[in-house]
Amino acid sequence: MRDVAVIGIGCTKFGEKWESSFRDIFVEAGTLALEDAQLSGEKIDAMYVGNMSAGRFIGQEHIGALIADYAGMATRHIPSTRVEAACASGGLAFRQAVIAVASGMEDIVVAAGVEKMTDVGSDESTDTLTGAADREWEGFMGATFPGLYAMIANDYIHKYGMTREQLAQVAVKNHYNGARNPIAQFPNEITLDTVMKSTMVAEPLRLFDCSPVTDGAAAVIVAPLDRAKEFTDTPIKVLATAQASDSIALHDRRDISTLDATVAAGQRAFKMAHLTNKDINMVEVHDCFSIAEICAIEDLGFCKKGTAGKFTADGETALGGKIPVNTSGGLKACGHPVGATGIKQVYEIVQQLRGDAGKRQVENAKIGMTHNVGGTGATVAVHILGRV
Amino acid sequence: MRDVAVIGIGCTKFGEKWESSFRDIFVEAGTLALEDAQLSGEKIDAMYVGNMSAGRFIGQEHIGALIADYAGMATRHIPSTRVEAACASGGLAFRQAVIAVASGMEDIVVAAGVEKMTDVGSDESTDTLTGAADREWEGFMGATFPGLYAMIANDYIHKYGMTREQLAQVAVKNHYNGARNPIAQFPNEITLDTVMKSTMVAEPLRLFDCSPVTDGAAAVIVAPLDRAKEFTDTPIKVLATAQASDSIALHDRRDISTLDATVAAGQRAFKMAHLTNKDINMVEVHDCFSIAEICAIEDLGFCKKGTAGKFTADGETALGGKIPVNTSGGLKACGHPVGATGIKQVYEIVQQLRGDAGKRQVENAKIGMTHNVGGTGATVAVHILGRV
Repeated sequence: MRDVAVIGIGCTKFGEKWESSFRDIFVEAGTLALEDAQLSGEKIDAMYVGNMSAGRFIGQEHIGALIADYAGMATRHIPSTRVEAACASGGLAFRQAVIAVASGMEDIVVAAGVEKMTDVGSDESTDTLTGAADREWEGFMGATFPGLYAMIANDYIHKYGMTREQLAQVAVKNHYNGARNPIAQFPNEITLDTVMKSTMVAEPLRLFDCSPVTDGAAAVIVAPLDRAKEFTDTPIKVLATAQASDSIALHDRRDISTLDATVAAGQRAFKMAHLTNKDINMVEVHDCFSIAEICAIEDLGFCKKGTAGKFTADGETALGGKIPVNTSGGLKACGHPVGATGIKQVYEIVQQLRGDAGKRQVENAKIGMTHNVGGTGATVAVHILGRV
Repeated sequence: MRDVAVIGIGCTKFGEKWESSFRDIFVEAGTLALEDAQLSGEKIDAMYVGNMSAGRFIGQEHIGALIADYAGMATRHIPSTRVEAACASGGLAFRQAVIAVASGMEDIVVAAGVEKMTDVGSDESTDTLTGAADREWEGFMGATFPGLYAMIANDYIHKYGMTREQLAQVAVKNHYNGARNPIAQFPNEITLDTVMKSTMVAEPLRLFDCSPVTDGAAAVIVAPLDRAKEFTDTPIKVLATAQASDSIALHDRRDISTLDATVAAGQRAFKMAHLTNKDINMVEVHDCFSIAEICAIEDLGFCKKGTAGKFTADGETALGGKIPVNTSGGLKACGHPVGATGIKQVYEIVQQLRGDAGKRQVENAKIGMTHNVGGTGATVAVHILGRV
């Protein structure tokens, strides 16, 4: 297989984009990525797009063709493929693009992610998102995503004795980072009090433990590493791509508060890259809820099981800490347009590795990781990227 | 890239499967494919599944993980990815599986397709299928799929003077073949009269010009060609995989009654396989409506533009004709569970190439082709398979 590099990145501002349609936002992200790579669209050989549920959010399937068309690629009839794995759709789209280039099948490939979530009401979006869980055994029984992650949180707190204040520090840290990210949906700092006094959503999770409903799109362009210098002075090499699955229903897992798919995908990624977690300078993890970040950093090996609450409260995951986590602001503060999140994670890590992350720059960043979760952990995609 | 072969195939009977759930039918197809390859599930490295709209048909997204789980693969945490391109979802899932093996990323990969369409009423299924077209410029204006294909038919008849009777012969021939296929939804022969006197759906298309709403699942297993003999005495080599896109809306096309994406994907496939249409012994084309088969066999080069009506009426696409088309019965008689269709086409061609097609066997079949369309031609996947 050939080595693959990221040569261009683009992302819309995340938020409630009442003024834009689904089509508008992915064209915006794609155009930004092309501009970044100083490429014209004619050079693109194929596209992969991550999208969870445009069928229910906007009544539109066939998203690959739609994107190719509105990006001006239809007349050249390039292959364009939608990939879906709930909130991990973006991560899997990136992986398919990497495989397509690594295989030699394609040269210049766009990996995009897009979700327009605010065209339906909150009842409908909550139910649509439940489609990421087990509809028959969870959804029909009344479980929503905050409810399922609350079960994870309760199990975790029961087993490891994390305090509610430690858990809240995840959100405080992510808002601090988001306040330094121009694309963030909520670019404002918060305090421990903001979290602790916010509305209860599903005990013990409060409003500020939960990522928001978001519109947004992101795109990155990948190419063979040996051609990357044609397009950019700062190609970012894809050191590993890994993906793992687990039971769709939470109650079928070996351990409710360990995401075995995260463990498996993380180990595969480290093996593929010949690296360990000590080599990673910063990581974007899937903090759809604060407890998800706690589990993720343990299951990826950045701290011992049961210690992530203290690790976070001690500032080890903050900018300047041992392992900065979610410098973008994460899903919590940057926003979570589900299909776009996995690509936005790559967008953030590439900015860090290029030294372009501004006020949230990690010093001397050489190697970064992304971790994208579908559902409560039934799909996990992990990527490792590095400076060349 | 490595050569890839199909080593196992399985398919449910197609039909209105009131007694079975979405989960039941893909497990049935997957189990049949594993048995066919004499494989245990432990040997599977990854899965790709084509599905158009489980989000709307059964309220369930995250189909890749669901399938891996119910197929017993969750505990090994294998990658499992859903691919969507409307009615071409199955064809694209097969293509991704082929690329994954060709790249060296994976060894033994399942490509599956599944759709459970009868759990919603016909209004809802018609609207869901409209999500394969341009929702904003076609769906919201009242266009349904029969309406869009009727426009193609009217344009074609206006340009080339095909008779209504010639068009009807597509359905008569496909029902003849379907009557010889044990998995067909409608295994009954019909006459010209059956078509000509059936209910008008969208002028000039009548009920028997239209493929049905179907439940069904199909699965095939691919492996590196050099390992195929471990599993089967009759590996079938994947000689080409090609995919093309076009505008999502019909009115944006260069020519309403030529599917340029079929032309492009066909040419790419022939080039990749170093073959021409004269080398193909039989082809499964996407006859979602009778007119679609007429366009397909022309756009793939099996007869000249404007002549497919006569070509069909003359029996050249029947068993024993110049180029047998849709020996399975096609979407019309075998049925059209949208996400499964592209995989069922591969299933049929593999049966033909193995010499296992019974009463519908094409004599001395050495090379076959599949042609899978999304929407009105916004995505097309073409594959060429051959005996080793």
